[in-house]
Amino acid sequence: METKNYKLTLAYDGTRYLGWQKLGERGSKDYGRTIQGKLETLLSKLTGEAVEVNGAGRTDAGVHAAGQTANFKTAFAAVPAEIMTYCNQYLPEDIAVLTVEEMPERFHARLHARGKLYCYRIHNGPTPDVFRQRFEYRVAGPLDMAAMEAAAAQLCGEHDFRPFCASKRTKKSTVRTVDTIRLVRDGAKIEVCFHGSGFLYNMVRILTGTLIEVGLGRRRPEEIGAIFAGERPAGYTAPAHGLTLERVDYDAEI
Amino acid sequence: METKNYKLTLAYDGTRYLGWQKLGERGSKDYGRTIQGKLETLLSKLTGEAVEVNGAGRTDAGVHAAGQTANFKTAFAAVPAEIMTYCNQYLPEDIAVLTVEEMPERFHARLHARGKLYCYRIHNGPTPDVFRQRFEYRVAGPLDMAAMEAAAAQLCGEHDFRPFCASKRTKKSTVRTVDTIRLVRDGAKIEVCFHGSGFLYNMVRILTGTLIEVGLGRRRPEEIGAIFAGERPAGYTAPAHGLTLERVDYDAEI
Repeated sequence: METKNYKLTLAYDGTRYLGWQKLGERGSKDYGRTIQGKLETLLSKLTGEAVEVNGAGRTDAGVHAAGQTANFKTAFAAVPAEIMTYCNQYLPEDIAVLTVEEMPERFHARLHARGKLYCYRIHNGPTPDVFRQRFEYRVAGPLDMAAMEAAAAQLCGEHDFRPFCASKRTKKSTVRTVDTIRLVRDGAKIEVCFHGSGFLYNMVRILTGTLIEVGLGRRRPEEIGAIFAGERPAGYTAPAHGLTLERVDYDAEI
Repeated sequence: METKNYKLTLAYDGTRYLGWQKLGERGSKDYGRTIQGKLETLLSKLTGEAVEVNGAGRTDAGVHAAGQTANFKTAFAAVPAEIMTYCNQYLPEDIAVLTVEEMPERFHARLHARGKLYCYRIHNGPTPDVFRQRFEYRVAGPLDMAAMEAAAAQLCGEHDFRPFCASKRTKKSTVRTVDTIRLVRDGAKIEVCFHGSGFLYNMVRILTGTLIEVGLGRRRPEEIGAIFAGERPAGYTAPAHGLTLERVDYDAEI
């Protein structure tokens, strides 16, 4: 029986979920409150197999995705368009399958990911934006964009990001490369977009919290070096709901 | 004691509410599930008076507002900026006060409204938009924009809109003037914006449902005349969550 390997691109509003990664046993309540669990349940129903879905990024509880990627293998014969239609018909309204493609057997959404783009959205205005409050973190005080940019520049490059990781005792390498941190302001809206090869647990949210503290004048941009050196603590963990996994990059050959 | 009259501009995500208009007794559960009830409760707390808030448009359960207006009178001495800050601090995240202005004593948000702009948002694409699903109604089939525009043109002007009103037995006049119906398509997004002097109960949603039926080819644009003549029924009532009260107009002298 021929096994096929499908790549999915997914969008979700993470508000109601415990995060990407499945929890508990198949069929348990917590399992159904994860994005991975929801997809596995549905794809298992479609194929009649116990499908395993590999996601590229293990987004935290409350974090959203506009372009998460995942893959799953099945012997079930279906064309990609059928899988997509089925998923979008039966998934809850806050999860959407944007694309389905057949891939070579060796493709793995997480192991082959070469880069990820995360955007953190801040609403920095005098009045709340009721239509975007699920996806933006509101900061009331004025933010010094120049200071934030100066700090962001020091965060880019290859560093040991252990001070910006929530699980400080991990034995795995905490060296990562952040290629770019782009800050864009449009009226009350600020987007802080991080592109890198990979990110540690809570790293984007701790980087964002640190940048916000710099923007509010509670820290100087020059402190970043002292944080890397372990002489000062990193900033707070910005709340999950402002963060969206925008895109996952793969080598063109894959 | 001098009484002041304040005009409020409001935005809200109507998803969680039973609509603008207050229900039940002050302090009851239903009262607190209306926008008017929420505002009256908060402003009564601020002023120490039993404040009454008049809204310009009685938006239905689930309908949103980007620019609802309202007014209330109070003897409490506060400058508009203080009222606004207080409201935005204590209102739930899905209601925002955008502006507060002091007005002449005779100003009444509903009675002096000269025009209203409502926009109905449709998502007409192959995949759901998980970030906008609270504010857009998804129509899967292709929509013929030219046919919808031809039908919209026939709906404009002064007409007896009784066939497009949910309370058909009202004894009040059901003659209204719709100045413009503007249809704009941008990719999968369609906005249908209605500007007029006033709208009957569910009228915008029934007009929208009728236009969608024309767009789907289930009716011809020429049927509009027969609907006004009572020879054919109007279309279905498009769901509340696609509709937003965008703006309320007043004469410049007020």
